[in-house]
Amino acid sequence: MIRFDCDYNNGCHPRILEALAKTNGEQHPGYGTDTHCARARELIREACNAPEADVHFLVGGTQTNAVVIAAALRPWEGVLSAESGHIAAHETGAVEAGGHKVLPLPQRDGKLDPETLRAAIAALRADPNFEHIVQPGLVYISQPTEYGALYSRGELEAISAVCRAAGLLLFLDGARLGYALAADEGLTLPDYARCCDVFYIGGTKLGCLFGEAVVIPNDALKPCFRNLMKQRGALLAKGRLLGVQFETMFTDGLYLDCGRTAVRTAQRIKAALLEKGLPLAFDSPTNQLFIELTRAQQAALERDFVLGRWDTTGGETDVLRICTSWSTTEEQTDKLIKAIRNL
Amino acid sequence: MIRFDCDYNNGCHPRILEALAKTNGEQHPGYGTDTHCARARELIREACNAPEADVHFLVGGTQTNAVVIAAALRPWEGVLSAESGHIAAHETGAVEAGGHKVLPLPQRDGKLDPETLRAAIAALRADPNFEHIVQPGLVYISQPTEYGALYSRGELEAISAVCRAAGLLLFLDGARLGYALAADEGLTLPDYARCCDVFYIGGTKLGCLFGEAVVIPNDALKPCFRNLMKQRGALLAKGRLLGVQFETMFTDGLYLDCGRTAVRTAQRIKAALLEKGLPLAFDSPTNQLFIELTRAQQAALERDFVLGRWDTTGGETDVLRICTSWSTTEEQTDKLIKAIRNL
Amino acid sequence: MIRFDCDYNNGCHPRILEALAKTNGEQHPGYGTDTHCARARELIREACNAPEADVHFLVGGTQTNAVVIAAALRPWEGVLSAESGHIAAHETGAVEAGGHKVLPLPQRDGKLDPETLRAAIAALRADPNFEHIVQPGLVYISQPTEYGALYSRGELEAISAVCRAAGLLLFLDGARLGYALAADEGLTLPDYARCCDVFYIGGTKLGCLFGEAVVIPNDALKPCFRNLMKQRGALLAKGRLLGVQFETMFTDGLYLDCGRTAVRTAQRIKAALLEKGLPLAFDSPTNQLFIELTRAQQAALERDFVLGRWDTTGGETDVLRICTSWSTTEEQTDKLIKAIRNL
Amino acid sequence: MIRFDCDYNNGCHPRILEALAKTNGEQHPGYGTDTHCARARELIREACNAPEADVHFLVGGTQTNAVVIAAALRPWEGVLSAESGHIAAHETGAVEAGGHKVLPLPQRDGKLDPETLRAAIAALRADPNFEHIVQPGLVYISQPTEYGALYSRGELEAISAVCRAAGLLLFLDGARLGYALAADEGLTLPDYARCCDVFYIGGTKLGCLFGEAVVIPNDALKPCFRNLMKQRGALLAKGRLLGVQFETMFTDGLYLDCGRTAVRTAQRIKAALLEKGLPLAFDSPTNQLFIELTRAQQAALERDFVLGRWDTTGGETDVLRICTSWSTTEEQTDKLIKAIRNL
Repeated sequence: MIRFDCDYNNGCHPRILEALAKTNGEQHPGYGTDTHCARARELIREACNAPEADVHFLVGGTQTNAVVIAAALRPWEGVLSAESGHIAAHETGAVEAGGHKVLPLPQRDGKLDPETLRAAIAALRADPNFEHIVQPGLVYISQPTEYGALYSRGELEAISAVCRAAGLLLFLDGARLGYALAADEGLTLPDYARCCDVFYIGGTKLGCLFGEAVVIPNDALKPCFRNLMKQRGALLAKGRLLGVQFETMFTDGLYLDCGRTAVRTAQRIKAALLEKGLPLAFDSPTNQLFIELTRAQQAALERDFVLGRWDTTGGETDVLRICTSWSTTEEQTDKLIKAIRNL
Repeated sequence: MIRFDCDYNNGCHPRILEALAKTNGEQHPGYGTDTHCARARELIREACNAPEADVHFLVGGTQTNAVVIAAALRPWEGVLSAESGHIAAHETGAVEAGGHKVLPLPQRDGKLDPETLRAAIAALRADPNFEHIVQPGLVYISQPTEYGALYSRGELEAISAVCRAAGLLLFLDGARLGYALAADEGLTLPDYARCCDVFYIGGTKLGCLFGEAVVIPNDALKPCFRNLMKQRGALLAKGRLLGVQFETMFTDGLYLDCGRTAVRTAQRIKAALLEKGLPLAFDSPTNQLFIELTRAQQAALERDFVLGRWDTTGGETDVLRICTSWSTTEEQTDKLIKAIRNL
Repeated sequence: MIRFDCDYNNGCHPRILEALAKTNGEQHPGYGTDTHCARARELIREACNAPEADVHFLVGGTQTNAVVIAAALRPWEGVLSAESGHIAAHETGAVEAGGHKVLPLPQRDGKLDPETLRAAIAALRADPNFEHIVQPGLVYISQPTEYGALYSRGELEAISAVCRAAGLLLFLDGARLGYALAADEGLTLPDYARCCDVFYIGGTKLGCLFGEAVVIPNDALKPCFRNLMKQRGALLAKGRLLGVQFETMFTDGLYLDCGRTAVRTAQRIKAALLEKGLPLAFDSPTNQLFIELTRAQQAALERDFVLGRWDTTGGETDVLRICTSWSTTEEQTDKLIKAIRNL
Repeated sequence: MIRFDCDYNNGCHPRILEALAKTNGEQHPGYGTDTHCARARELIREACNAPEADVHFLVGGTQTNAVVIAAALRPWEGVLSAESGHIAAHETGAVEAGGHKVLPLPQRDGKLDPETLRAAIAALRADPNFEHIVQPGLVYISQPTEYGALYSRGELEAISAVCRAAGLLLFLDGARLGYALAADEGLTLPDYARCCDVFYIGGTKLGCLFGEAVVIPNDALKPCFRNLMKQRGALLAKGRLLGVQFETMFTDGLYLDCGRTAVRTAQRIKAALLEKGLPLAFDSPTNQLFIELTRAQQAALERDFVLGRWDTTGGETDVLRICTSWSTTEEQTDKLIKAIRNL
């Protein structure tokens, strides 16, 4: 069986493994105060053209979202998110466990519309029951979204402008940011650093064993962030592990390479799906494809491949997810394409 | 100006005031351990035909909802509520501040449909991402609802049956329960005690200065409830004040009388609205009426009356709320009816 | 039986009752937006010589402490308090339920020592495990303390100076502030407003039915305080009740009168205790007296009086609390003094 | 410089690294549902003689403590801990951030005394202010303690008996459990499983890259534990990494070997310290040694070694920690011993 169900079912990129092995005998102080973390921070600040940004390394996405949101909000504030956003739908109420409401907004392909966002903020602030309403403090978006879609540069700038005009912070969940970078190479890390108050560069889904690099350009979010990490169980004792991984990722362009592999293979599969006339539930330029398949088609593909089960349409078909990753090979891709053609 | 905007803009019923004045010189131990509270608990247990129920007195509705929900849920659980429910919309995230997600469900007239509820619970439990999803622990309903509608006996029993079959607790917010009791005299306090695991009998909106009486038939919710009240700032030092008020309310049928006054006057106004051909946004058998009025009609009525601003329709009209209470007089009602006829 | 066990076992001062009765028929908008609240705020600002301060009315002390502390702290911060402080010992973990640690400090008569405080802050900030330690954000003191002691003007100013030098906020719990004002008339409300970032003027224990008036001189604590009150169940629907009570209290010096009655009677009792040679556990200039009594002495006094049980000494004696209040009469005082003399 | 400051400054045991490398190319479903996790769970259940226990793998200690405590407590409950316990002192208020108070108890060498514990529970339950007091729900102990001490079998059984008699749960923090197992081989994993309701077997400090294995013998703590892990950011996406590490640790006795290496080297160093007449701050049979050193002695040792800074005595000396680990070699030990002899 070849797995195309998600982008975290493989180990790590060989260069990451090699770096971990090579540094395994070193002794370092704990909690991210080692020289590898320092170097990785420096490389990320350079890549983001954000020399003043703080950079922190956490273990996973839900943890990262919870810590960032806790740092950003006051008790009476909530976080605006697409109703399909990961924090709204698939984190078992992590934001609420931290005391805050997720304020869900309508979405298209997982994206917020800047004008809808502006109007929602205005409505919450103008509500005659102002004091009985959670006030927005932060806007949460994902790039790419849960459905693999991308904000364009113009859209990202518009969202950012809406937030700044309203005095809200903007947080971009980049669990799969490498796939966005690879899919739209016009939108770069410095753009994210410029438009966002805080964002993260996902490692878990992009060839690290685990790890997310939080970048904080906005000074207001910097104080005692490490204390908050510790409090939420997000300060890894052997922080070196994260430093080494991100140091490797930001050396010789490995991070972008990982993204490109996934996008290239996914887009080859997409071409095969379209050629075959199979309906895409959403159009995605990144590493996730969502297709409607009949039960018979599913059975045929699932003989040799594990696909992600996404949703039922209520009728004869289901929506399945095909997900490539940094580890997907051309050979695996060829096999899947062949199976698609034989449907 | 006469206020018809809400049911908590007046003081208290004269008999309540008299009882407070009469007992003002008494000395009592604090925190609800006095003889008036004991007597009020006994009267409420009798009225509910629930001799084993625990009864606690709290100050206000949001506080009561927060304490009950905290007592009912485990950390990974959320509370199912109509999306229009007070806890979902108008308590500034009090449930979330306590660490739990409100799981919103579609509603009609503010009511949950038993079958929709059953299906929603089943879907949450069967979700392939079970561990990434907040699980339901409690169902929250209001009687009457935010829109003044009532669950019938059959509907209440059906909701209760769904909850029990699923192993969920049922909590009924009775901030306006007296108006429900007055509007549908076939559904009585023993019915609520039989169908619910916990509910409350609202005093603030029914002629008390303040106060809500929580009734807990289900043993599982009883332990250390008073500790939780104290923790959430809901254990009134001079608990006697609550005991005296509910003792008075449950003597000689005062609570029901207060409800009847409001329902009778509201239904007289409703007849006048219908006679005039003014469109009701929802049909309510209780003390709240929701009508669509043009700007001119609003201006005409708002010359002498304060109405509640509910919603905009987006067009030429707005939805306004006319709310009577235990304190609404026939004379006030006559004046409003006259103004309606003159529109 | 005459109760001397606490200062909240009576009703309210007759002038409060009269004002509530007189305004009972008025109609007002809810949640503290009425004219009585506005007037009471104005009177309190004047009394505090703090024209720019925000003033809010809450129902009880634990609730008030929880809301103020939530407003003041960031998630990684805790509140420094005497280990005997009410928030540390007797609020069932209300601060922790809000997500924050109470950082206990040693005390004398319930008071913090400015130098001890300064050193504790410095130690927390300089801890080599800084990120593994809750950082202080707020200092909590009570005036009078749990043991009835008073900070002198010099001590209060020193505590305030330590906080300001360290960039910490100072919160003074004034649940019994009226007794402090009466006992040390050199220290006035403007002093508290000048030295504190936020404090409250207690009504529940000083002749109101209930109610605490929060005064916020520091702008940083003002935003969305009412949203937070609502979220924590502390925004009373019929806010007028609080407005009327504090309006009355701050008219013709009633608040100070209430304090003086209690202090005068308590000091008369103290003189009798000393005359009799009964050991005081702490020396208190306010309305609370703590005495060590043998079992036989307790039995003799508890024939006609209810005293507060405070602590056991582990030996033949217990520490009991004698607490007067605004409602204590000279006649009640005479009876107790007589009983003391007869021991 | 050779580091003796803590037991998590090295990488992982070579066999762990080898296992991770060997399995790196495998594809697995996420979140701990893979075959390595299944196998590791089975091995741990066998080692604990607890065939019905649930076993979960988390990333770090603070995270593990927070999740277990959240699973165990109701909102009005707190956790009893030695005042020196990690949760009380060095987790930046993680327990409080979850809404619960840590109830500190006096300790000796970091240990709770069973009789002190029993009395503390009894006092909290019998407090006349019961409802104003956080009630205990859980007892937290560490084996070894923060100071490297061990509960004997008799002490552990006594603590367990106190908890069971009182209806409290017992949680044992085993971040360094391997060192305890190595130091007192009479006390085995089945003993911990028998005496505790939940405990964990630490990997981070014992030769894993990271990871803690929670063992839950008590059925009451099992429901939805994985949901809670997800909510608190503790469900690792590539769960396989944890499974592979613990599978390796519990094959051919590696876990115990790691412990033995550290204990053997530490005890050699201890002998050298005693021979030299250097005062131990606490006597520890495990891998941590605490010694009082003058400034000159510190400077001499810190020329070649990094030691842990523990505490100041206030005088001419400081308390330092010497910590060995699974990775400490005889050669490193010899060098340190030589330096000690030369002091």
